[in-house]
Amino acid sequence: MSVVQSLAPAHQSLFEAKAVKGLSFEQIAQKVGRDEVWVAALFYGQAKPTEDEVKKLGKALGLQEGPLLKHWHPHYFPERGGLIPTGQAPADPTLYRLYEIISVYGYAIKSVIHERFGDGIMSAINFSCKVDKVQKNGADNVQITLTGKWLPYDFHEEEQSAQ
Amino acid sequence: MSVVQSLAPAHQSLFEAKAVKGLSFEQIAQKVGRDEVWVAALFYGQAKPTEDEVKKLGKALGLQEGPLLKHWHPHYFPERGGLIPTGQAPADPTLYRLYEIISVYGYAIKSVIHERFGDGIMSAINFSCKVDKVQKNGADNVQITLTGKWLPYDFHEEEQSAQ
Amino acid sequence: MSVVQSLAPAHQSLFEAKAVKGLSFEQIAQKVGRDEVWVAALFYGQAKPTEDEVKKLGKALGLQEGPLLKHWHPHYFPERGGLIPTGQAPADPTLYRLYEIISVYGYAIKSVIHERFGDGIMSAINFSCKVDKVQKNGADNVQITLTGKWLPYDFHEEEQSAQ
Amino acid sequence: MSVVQSLAPAHQSLFEAKAVKGLSFEQIAQKVGRDEVWVAALFYGQAKPTEDEVKKLGKALGLQEGPLLKHWHPHYFPERGGLIPTGQAPADPTLYRLYEIISVYGYAIKSVIHERFGDGIMSAINFSCKVDKVQKNGADNVQITLTGKWLPYDFHEEEQSAQ
Amino acid sequence: MSVVQSLAPAHQSLFEAKAVKGLSFEQIAQKVGRDEVWVAALFYGQAKPTEDEVKKLGKALGLQEGPLLKHWHPHYFPERGGLIPTGQAPADPTLYRLYEIISVYGYAIKSVIHERFGDGIMSAINFSCKVDKVQKNGADNVQITLTGKWLPYDFHEEEQSAQ
Amino acid sequence: MSVVQSLAPAHQSLFEAKAVKGLSFEQIAQKVGRDEVWVAALFYGQAKPTEDEVKKLGKALGLQEGPLLKHWHPHYFPERGGLIPTGQAPADPTLYRLYEIISVYGYAIKSVIHERFGDGIMSAINFSCKVDKVQKNGADNVQITLTGKWLPYDFHEEEQSAQ
Amino acid sequence: MSVVQSLAPAHQSLFEAKAVKGLSFEQIAQKVGRDEVWVAALFYGQAKPTEDEVKKLGKALGLQEGPLLKHWHPHYFPERGGLIPTGQAPADPTLYRLYEIISVYGYAIKSVIHERFGDGIMSAINFSCKVDKVQKNGADNVQITLTGKWLPYDFHEEEQSAQ
Amino acid sequence: MSVVQSLAPAHQSLFEAKAVKGLSFEQIAQKVGRDEVWVAALFYGQAKPTEDEVKKLGKALGLQEGPLLKHWHPHYFPERGGLIPTGQAPADPTLYRLYEIISVYGYAIKSVIHERFGDGIMSAINFSCKVDKVQKNGADNVQITLTGKWLPYDFHEEEQSAQ
Amino acid sequence: MSVVQSLAPAHQSLFEAKAVKGLSFEQIAQKVGRDEVWVAALFYGQAKPTEDEVKKLGKALGLQEGPLLKHWHPHYFPERGGLIPTGQAPADPTLYRLYEIISVYGYAIKSVIHERFGDGIMSAINFSCKVDKVQKNGADNVQITLTGKWLPYDFHEEEQSAQ
Amino acid sequence: MSVVQSLAPAHQSLFEAKAVKGLSFEQIAQKVGRDEVWVAALFYGQAKPTEDEVKKLGKALGLQEGPLLKHWHPHYFPERGGLIPTGQAPADPTLYRLYEIISVYGYAIKSVIHERFGDGIMSAINFSCKVDKVQKNGADNVQITLTGKWLPYDFHEEEQSAQ
Repeated sequence: MSVVQSLAPAHQSLFEAKAVKGLSFEQIAQKVGRDEVWVAALFYGQAKPTEDEVKKLGKALGLQEGPLLKHWHPHYFPERGGLIPTGQAPADPTLYRLYEIISVYGYAIKSVIHERFGDGIMSAINFSCKVDKVQKNGADNVQITLTGKWLPYDFHEEEQSAQ
Repeated sequence: MSVVQSLAPAHQSLFEAKAVKGLSFEQIAQKVGRDEVWVAALFYGQAKPTEDEVKKLGKALGLQEGPLLKHWHPHYFPERGGLIPTGQAPADPTLYRLYEIISVYGYAIKSVIHERFGDGIMSAINFSCKVDKVQKNGADNVQITLTGKWLPYDFHEEEQSAQ
Repeated sequence: MSVVQSLAPAHQSLFEAKAVKGLSFEQIAQKVGRDEVWVAALFYGQAKPTEDEVKKLGKALGLQEGPLLKHWHPHYFPERGGLIPTGQAPADPTLYRLYEIISVYGYAIKSVIHERFGDGIMSAINFSCKVDKVQKNGADNVQITLTGKWLPYDFHEEEQSAQ
Repeated sequence: MSVVQSLAPAHQSLFEAKAVKGLSFEQIAQKVGRDEVWVAALFYGQAKPTEDEVKKLGKALGLQEGPLLKHWHPHYFPERGGLIPTGQAPADPTLYRLYEIISVYGYAIKSVIHERFGDGIMSAINFSCKVDKVQKNGADNVQITLTGKWLPYDFHEEEQSAQ
Repeated sequence: MSVVQSLAPAHQSLFEAKAVKGLSFEQIAQKVGRDEVWVAALFYGQAKPTEDEVKKLGKALGLQEGPLLKHWHPHYFPERGGLIPTGQAPADPTLYRLYEIISVYGYAIKSVIHERFGDGIMSAINFSCKVDKVQKNGADNVQITLTGKWLPYDFHEEEQSAQ
Repeated sequence: MSVVQSLAPAHQSLFEAKAVKGLSFEQIAQKVGRDEVWVAALFYGQAKPTEDEVKKLGKALGLQEGPLLKHWHPHYFPERGGLIPTGQAPADPTLYRLYEIISVYGYAIKSVIHERFGDGIMSAINFSCKVDKVQKNGADNVQITLTGKWLPYDFHEEEQSAQ
Repeated sequence: MSVVQSLAPAHQSLFEAKAVKGLSFEQIAQKVGRDEVWVAALFYGQAKPTEDEVKKLGKALGLQEGPLLKHWHPHYFPERGGLIPTGQAPADPTLYRLYEIISVYGYAIKSVIHERFGDGIMSAINFSCKVDKVQKNGADNVQITLTGKWLPYDFHEEEQSAQ
Repeated sequence: MSVVQSLAPAHQSLFEAKAVKGLSFEQIAQKVGRDEVWVAALFYGQAKPTEDEVKKLGKALGLQEGPLLKHWHPHYFPERGGLIPTGQAPADPTLYRLYEIISVYGYAIKSVIHERFGDGIMSAINFSCKVDKVQKNGADNVQITLTGKWLPYDFHEEEQSAQ
Repeated sequence: MSVVQSLAPAHQSLFEAKAVKGLSFEQIAQKVGRDEVWVAALFYGQAKPTEDEVKKLGKALGLQEGPLLKHWHPHYFPERGGLIPTGQAPADPTLYRLYEIISVYGYAIKSVIHERFGDGIMSAINFSCKVDKVQKNGADNVQITLTGKWLPYDFHEEEQSAQ
Repeated sequence: MSVVQSLAPAHQSLFEAKAVKGLSFEQIAQKVGRDEVWVAALFYGQAKPTEDEVKKLGKALGLQEGPLLKHWHPHYFPERGGLIPTGQAPADPTLYRLYEIISVYGYAIKSVIHERFGDGIMSAINFSCKVDKVQKNGADNVQITLTGKWLPYDFHEEEQSAQ
């Protein structure tokens, strides 16, 4: 069963409408006025939209406002994570936050990678990363940049051995 | 037992020499001519240096070349990962690579965060991430940028209840 | 599947009625005459109400008494816990009780935090705790106070790299 | 093997000196000028002291400054958690922070409970908890108060059955 | 989902009939002529009744003999355990048998405790146990007696902090 | 490695002295003036003795008071459990207490069974249990009595097949 | 849920027809012309029958050939195991094969034991085993013979304590 | 680390003496007057010998009686199992006993297979098993016979591809 | 439940159509113009086909293009793995890739083995493997060749012991 | 701790001698007259050599015959596997054999890959595999060929963001 099939019916409808409309998360994000990864996370039940964002989302996908607003009612708060088995995560809080990011945003990142690059992976071998200090809204932010070569799935033809 | 104490003796010596010299990974990286995160990963046994890099490392830390070269002999190849319990990782290869990055580079990233910011964490709540397509050496690369607010540990004083 | 969807149908009805009425746990608690966290725990199947409390609850939510009383019949006793995977809990009884509290009251606490503060978390970094001895009904009680900064979810906009 | 025996030698020395001096964490905390739970957490390797705090700690315990300062050298950063098996923690960040608190401060809390009450537990049955909004340093804080009856270990004498 | 909801339909009917009739396991046991814990275990699918016991059970609960006899047909043999996650049980056979008893009879014991005492637990702190040698049917038997204080659930009212 | 070899050195000495003196837990219990199971639990590090009990224990085993009193210094509090892998225990508190009893007293019970009966097990098949309400010190107590046939290990001789 | 209820519908029908006909695996085996354990394994989805065996099986159970032949179509190959959680099996291949036997044939063996002996177990205490070298079809075979006393379930009546 | 290296020193000595003397378990069994599998189990710490058997064993292996008798002192009782990770064993007692047999006698069986056949395995594919009812000492016994083809390890030479 | 029954409905239809048509993966592969293992992997949801391949597949199986193209819509990207429990995989990336291959292509390989050889296994005992360097599309490739004897399932007839 | 450090001392000596001599497994294999992967497996304790092979191995590595022959004495039989955590392997025997191959030969394959290619991995993305039927010694063999692009570790230099 795919992870989408395990989501609440309201979220399965989002994916269905998206497929029917043939929209990418990037296109939806532009219509909702939020980031692409955030919108993908919202589809996977990992974020809480405002009422205005729900309306824009419904419009973008051609879905009625009513059921969407009922689903994301004021007392709705997401149960984040749960899509990826988290197994035995590292206890150290600095390391754990890296796991939490994958737990909460992993499927959103995977979806955006696929929509932008196709079927494949970001290499962890031909890969580098760096840690920077950046400012956001007057506060120090940690910025981790992960860069890996794009590797498309490529199952090449095999010659059968003579038998 | 700290993860450093679980490393091979040769690696424990690196950390000891680094503490005695009072060097940061950034400073050592400049002397070795490699990236800071890579050097931290090397300390944790997650990378394979060239003979030249071993010599520069020894010089930077005031350690004799001989034992270092013997440790990283030509047939030495790192067993990467193993520092963080990986538990039940996601099977999907695109998601797995994100786990592998934490498994291999997690402690290096943690160390560099601490040396640059102090004792604390990168927030996964006041946080954003994006996925970009960048070019490196004429090939498409996936670039994931994680940005989270710096949160220093701050255990504030408590007033004891009257008893 | 959200944890609410995994509850018995009777409990799902409570959440549905609550959403329709737009009531917070605090408001329901005042009508039932019990504590807010206890009422939230009751919704999650972690407490046993008296017949009188069931009636007040039904009235508060606009639900018929009959099915509620049938659900919480005299021989009904909750199977507590089970909402959160408890994995490998600490064996030491003093430590275990802390886990048990999260296992039984965790979702109730999460719900009350969200209703009072919004979508976010209590920081475990900008955080302190203390242990006090207090008297309740003529007996010594251990009182543990956990205080952490409120961190609202804030996924800030990212500028896309030029590509 | 007790958790103390699993700590780094420097930390085992702290516990030994504490036992020899017959000091409670509360007494040490007063001499160091920090909170009791924080000091207990420091003993268990879950906190990073300032140089000044290291000196006060050494003085309080009758230990030489040198080795203590060497242990907590400027590039030392704790690997928090790891004392309690964290198994399969809840993925939801709001719930996870409750686990993290036990993972990081659990042994400190256990120690302070024992030193203040003796050998026993805080009941999770004769128990209540509440969630408050409090202000600290001009910011909203979540305050969770856990109150449970003190239950001392009491293994009463048994009469042997006639055989 | 409660453990009762996870049982085979035939067993769910037993619990439903019991609730409708308002019978305790003790009352049913008297009508079936077996022990109370055994009857509770039978409800949870952990025992194999004789044809005569099935008939008495049906009569006690006001259920038709036919479906009951079909469910417990001659080639039916219980798959015991499975209600409680047994995780990593102790390998030593003497210790394992203690786990097996909880695995097979745990829910039966819990049900009988609740019906006799109410909502709460047997304390493992204010607790003692002994091991005796007794004779049954001319053979040595090990008798382990576990005695713990009854602790009823008692979530006391909290005063809200001034805010 | 046997569980005794995993205990703190002070506890290993107790077992060694007991073997040298050829004493059973029952005999030691009579000299210490406590219950047999409690004394066995003390040997396994699962209980906290008073100063007076430590002295009697030392006398019974022919061990010097000094090291024993130093081991069980006033701020010593046992970390109970940990001898048996607790795996995935049941979350329900009523059921969990049964697990906790095995976790804390399991090895003590096993030792007393062996000393009283020999090498073998208490059957969980030829077995019964009951739940009683008894009074202790003016309070209700739950009493669970487990009775199982004694089964000694008996590996009978085999005839080898003709080959 | 019993293991039978977890099988594919075609297999559940086999068990149902067997119960209706009141046949033992031994009786079915004689009609199919295969071994009793193999037939029981077939019922549990652990073996692949020939077309002829399918026909005989259908005749023995009074089931139509068509659906049975469709279920066991030429490209059907069993996914063996999966009925018993295999957890952390031993990696050593010689030891693993013993686990595999239980994984594949465990339920078949259990069923045959019950049909031949009733409700109970083979003792692993009053038990012996031997290893022989035997010849089958001109090849060396390892033969392991496990012999354990039959222990029927016997939950004897308890006298209630005076209360 | 091999399982032998994980045994208590006394047991490691047995294996060492056996290797020096070049004795098989079958030869030792004849000198001790017990079954071969039982003797192998004794070497692995899974059985309790009588004083007489200890003396015969010492004589057979050329070891002094004293230390052997001290190791197997009257209050010594084996902690069986623990050599093979038991993971998530089946809860059903009839199935569990099959696991327990492997847990307790698995290494003994493996050793005897190797000494009788060489380096290889008993096939679980070219394999059959049966369940019989046999009489031992006037009681019904379950006898399970497992017969599998002997498969010796045979890593045949490979031709390297032209490169 | 077989792994096929756990797949999305679209994939179950593929297997059903294949059984009805009586086609092997090899035959379908020839019609689709891709490798046999890749086509089997596609059936198990482990690959992404082009629109042209979907059409050829539909034609080969006698299925309508529409639903197939809707299932494999442009934004569909497989969640690979998930059919086999991956448990605690090795963290080392070189070793992990071997696990990933089984996780993604395991069922495809199993299916092709069965269709080519029948019901049985590839021996890992009578087995060899080699590592070669080969060129593909102008790049170095690692080629691992695993060769093991074919072992068909063969449950031979047992003679029942006289009873 | 590397896997080599976890091996028996005799095996650690083999690796040390190999490093000192600067020999590859391929070179040693030629001197011993066995396959390269088999020899690497032997180093990791996963194979049983003949007396003649032990002598050739000693000669190749410049080690004395005596201790090597003592280590691989006639009754020595390897405990295979155990180097890689096998977690929750697939129960199906056809799939399991693939896991067993990695468990037993995984480190040998990794070592040979590194010695032949350097530091990196075999891609599982740019990858194909096929299944063939081949003849060896007059018997059908399953041959699985895995071919993946060689990906060398390449941590490229990062430009630091302006700060």
